[in-house]
Amino acid sequence: MLQLWALDGIGEITPGVDLVDVIATAARDELRDGDILVVTSKIVSKAEGRIIDADDREDAITAETVRVVATRTSATGHTTRIVENRLGMVSAAAGVDASNTPAGTVLLLPEDPDASARRLAEGLRERTGAIVGVLVSDTLGRAWREGQTDSAIGAGGVHVFEDLRGQTDAEGRPLVVTMPCVADEIAAAADLVKGKASRRPVAVVRGRADLVGALDLPGARSIVRPGDRDMFRRGADEAYADGFAAGAASAPSP
Amino acid sequence: MLQLWALDGIGEITPGVDLVDVIATAARDELRDGDILVVTSKIVSKAEGRIIDADDREDAITAETVRVVATRTSATGHTTRIVENRLGMVSAAAGVDASNTPAGTVLLLPEDPDASARRLAEGLRERTGAIVGVLVSDTLGRAWREGQTDSAIGAGGVHVFEDLRGQTDAEGRPLVVTMPCVADEIAAAADLVKGKASRRPVAVVRGRADLVGALDLPGARSIVRPGDRDMFRRGADEAYADGFAAGAASAPSP
Repeated sequence: MLQLWALDGIGEITPGVDLVDVIATAARDELRDGDILVVTSKIVSKAEGRIIDADDREDAITAETVRVVATRTSATGHTTRIVENRLGMVSAAAGVDASNTPAGTVLLLPEDPDASARRLAEGLRERTGAIVGVLVSDTLGRAWREGQTDSAIGAGGVHVFEDLRGQTDAEGRPLVVTMPCVADEIAAAADLVKGKASRRPVAVVRGRADLVGALDLPGARSIVRPGDRDMFRRGADEAYADGFAAGAASAPSP
Repeated sequence: MLQLWALDGIGEITPGVDLVDVIATAARDELRDGDILVVTSKIVSKAEGRIIDADDREDAITAETVRVVATRTSATGHTTRIVENRLGMVSAAAGVDASNTPAGTVLLLPEDPDASARRLAEGLRERTGAIVGVLVSDTLGRAWREGQTDSAIGAGGVHVFEDLRGQTDAEGRPLVVTMPCVADEIAAAADLVKGKASRRPVAVVRGRADLVGALDLPGARSIVRPGDRDMFRRGADEAYADGFAAGAASAPSP
């Protein structure tokens, strides 16, 4: 049995707030060994002071961008930029977020979400005595599928992949290819109880204690596929245009 | 509170088996109004007799393919084909699956997973009296992120997106862009209790009765982004090569 619930009583988070204290207080004495807390990146960013003036939004996206993957301008003139950010993640607008922020401001992603998750896990273990894991989640779009799902962008003390190596299927054959990204599955599950419109940015997931471990387990950074291994490292239109230019240049000149 | 558990006692599924009967029997009297059952596509395919000889695997992938999105050959000579299948889904090997199948066989995806999900939801509602929803799930890889997560490829009597239009964030601003794909989030959550190695292909999700509705709600087909709206409808290498050829051809001949 897996159980998930959102913590009530987490108020507005402002820069410098001690999130360990906020979460431990909201959880009261509920946390147990093996629980996994899923914390929305938004409140981590707020606590870490990653707030900038909304007028600087486009500049901020540019600053957070390592590489433009694809852009598209809608009929209304709005340009969506899909970019690889400094964390290696591919997402719209480099994760720069204008919802649920104070008027006139936008939020950057946490500086290092894995480090944030580890600090929270370590702090909550010390404070509550319960060996918990922490995931920092963000809402991401996907290729090929409409809508968004929450994914893990930071992990502390949680296995992000389920290691099925050495296991066999029900027919006794080795399970070799499959590597379930349990961190993303847990982040997605947590979104079902947190909601987007309410102020319930922290969920507790109970029932997969087998995934909780040492604080130095690999972080969510290990989920990011390096560009050189990614068949979709560039938008189709952009790759076509690059190829067209190279093809035109390669032709013998008249 | 969201609760998820896998049903025990679902044995080997063979062609022609009545899945409504199998699931209702395994669930005993547990099902309640608003429960969502997540059924692994594998057992739907088996019940529907979508089993072919493994020697025909490559031909089957070709037959299920509408469009090749990208291919890559590994150092060991194994070629991965990412394709759009007849359901519009982009996935590896068109969903043709060789794990957890009888030796010498592979499974095709259900002919129409939305229709399968609706039949199961309708049958389970009649049989148990509980207004349940059904998702048919499959394990899918992603662009940009390693590993796989379970997603919804069929839906019967369940909202696949959460409709946040008209709602506001905690600051009172309208939530316009976000459209959480709750069906994929539920399928992902269910994978956390089903596991890949055990024979527990059906999970019950309790706590989001608000997402359960009429049997003619849009199916999981509505999650599929049409190719002409998809910035990643073609692999980067393939799009580059197409562009290169077109560019070379466009140059004035000497």
